Amino acid sequence: MSELRKDPIIGRWVIISTERGKRPTDFVPAPPPAPPSGGFCPFCPGNEDKTPPEILAYRNNGDAPDTEGWHIRIVPNKYPALKVEGSLDREGHGVYDKINGIGAHEVIIESPEHTDTLATIAVKLFEDLLWAYRDRITDLKKDKRLKYALIFKNHGESAGATLEHTHSQLIAMPVIPKRVAEEIEGALKYYNYKERCIFCDIVRQEIQEEHRVVREERDFIAIAPYAPKSPFEVWILPKEHDSNFEDCMKRSFEGLSRIFSDVLKRMDKVLNCPPYNYILHTAPLNASNMPHYHWHFEIMPKLVKTAGFEWGSGFYINPTSPEEAARYLREAKI
Amino acid sequence: MSELRKDPIIGRWVIISTERGKRPTDFVPAPPPAPPSGGFCPFCPGNEDKTPPEILAYRNNGDAPDTEGWHIRIVPNKYPALKVEGSLDREGHGVYDKINGIGAHEVIIESPEHTDTLATIAVKLFEDLLWAYRDRITDLKKDKRLKYALIFKNHGESAGATLEHTHSQLIAMPVIPKRVAEEIEGALKYYNYKERCIFCDIVRQEIQEEHRVVREERDFIAIAPYAPKSPFEVWILPKEHDSNFEDCMKRSFEGLSRIFSDVLKRMDKVLNCPPYNYILHTAPLNASNMPHYHWHFEIMPKLVKTAGFEWGSGFYINPTSPEEAARYLREAKI
Repeated sequence: MSELRKDPIIGRWVIISTERGKRPTDFVPAPPPAPPSGGFCPFCPGNEDKTPPEILAYRNNGDAPDTEGWHIRIVPNKYPALKVEGSLDREGHGVYDKINGIGAHEVIIESPEHTDTLATIAVKLFEDLLWAYRDRITDLKKDKRLKYALIFKNHGESAGATLEHTHSQLIAMPVIPKRVAEEIEGALKYYNYKERCIFCDIVRQEIQEEHRVVREERDFIAIAPYAPKSPFEVWILPKEHDSNFEDCMKRSFEGLSRIFSDVLKRMDKVLNCPPYNYILHTAPLNASNMPHYHWHFEIMPKLVKTAGFEWGSGFYINPTSPEEAARYLREAKI
Repeated sequence: MSELRKDPIIGRWVIISTERGKRPTDFVPAPPPAPPSGGFCPFCPGNEDKTPPEILAYRNNGDAPDTEGWHIRIVPNKYPALKVEGSLDREGHGVYDKINGIGAHEVIIESPEHTDTLATIAVKLFEDLLWAYRDRITDLKKDKRLKYALIFKNHGESAGATLEHTHSQLIAMPVIPKRVAEEIEGALKYYNYKERCIFCDIVRQEIQEEHRVVREERDFIAIAPYAPKSPFEVWILPKEHDSNFEDCMKRSFEGLSRIFSDVLKRMDKVLNCPPYNYILHTAPLNASNMPHYHWHFEIMPKLVKTAGFEWGSGFYINPTSPEEAARYLREAKI
């Protein structure tokens, strides 16, 4: 059973995942590269029996689960960081705290086509992907042990993707990730002082100043954030206040898929199909309608070698200003 | 002039370094690899005129600055993230805050030998390196504009080293790095509640439990921390309470260089000479004798591909328990 452990100093939780337990020799040499295109892929149609049984799939017809015919398919991760079974036990030991590794770890297969990427799939399929995120969050809310559903994507080997076939991941956990908790806390401080959502203020200021705007739609805006952690980082935010991604209006999913697809196409054009990560920042599972928080996606292309000292210091050096990044992305001919 | 910018939500400061300004094409393809062994090296003796004039050097004789004969040499970074010149201006703009990029960015060349590593140099030279860190911190304290001196090392290309010749870096800045600020804040909360330093409590508990101890000396302990961000992460802490690295007793520098060298040798043995980063966590420049804070080094081997979603979520998945990591390191025959 893996464990969640809390750093007693800054309160960051980590998973100690013994089921993925690695011995030192597993690291030497570097982990094996992703299987080359054309090799066996457990996410391709026809190989449904090579994954654990599906949790959810969108199909065009009424086919049986775990058969072909799907366009979005969600399965448990074969090597989960957290598992649903068991009770939630929290215990202390001297200065340390732990919780056992209750949670869920799912893989969202984003297309049946092995060589698709999110920048190349149809906007309609992108919209279905967003609906799938929403359906999973809505379902996981019913499990009262879980506090947060972290949805993220690693695209490209150097951004951490171990399988080539386009997919994102969901980790549901009984704690709130440090960065999200900090965000919520910081936003609450601002709200308590100003009685306004800081993200709403950011959206307003960015629309007015224009120079960090990558793209604007009726309901959404894509900006290069003022103080980005990494070059060409882009955030996509709803213009209207909303703390919970899953409460997004139906018409908004359409607009969101359009702007998201557009931004990824621009990144591909400007940065020559970079590896990237994105993360959905949304309210905790047991919270709704927070007046101070505002859901958004953060997209970070993986352009610089490492972040070793950044990790350890929380201090980032960014070689590109967001104004410049936004201009390149905005002006790209796609 | 580069800028420091504050993320208005969680308070993290970043440098927008326009002097390192990169255009998108600079990222395509991947940045050039480090020059191969045998190529020209600006850090090798005889090439002193290829770096900016030295700030400090330890020499065996009274040779003139910027000539051969040194064994530790400190020079300004040729492409500094921050610069000393100018006044410290802080300004707000709507929801955003900025400070101009006042600070210092120095390179500490750790040996005259191009192919040395910190695991192979003599313990005596390692001790001199630690003295050099101390001398620089002590000197930078005089500049009242500066709040923090961040000392770190990137070893190996995939850990971010761009030059092969063994070196560490110092960035002095007018703000406190987020991670350090969080640490100090967290430690203060604990102190306010318990009237004890949390790091002292950790040291006590680790010595008693033994299984996360990598190495123990009279004055220092090396442990695998309870909730590590990355596999085989090791912290080196003084056993006696001390918040400021630069106030370390003379005899302690000897013990510290011995345990530090020992730990790096163990990592080399167990993990086959991995790339790594380390960071000195110490009190801010304008603080001394903090009863709640405790300086230490954090060493993180770079073993896993990326941390894309970890960056964005503050949520880490670690495939190796610290107990296991400590055992491998402790039992290594070096």
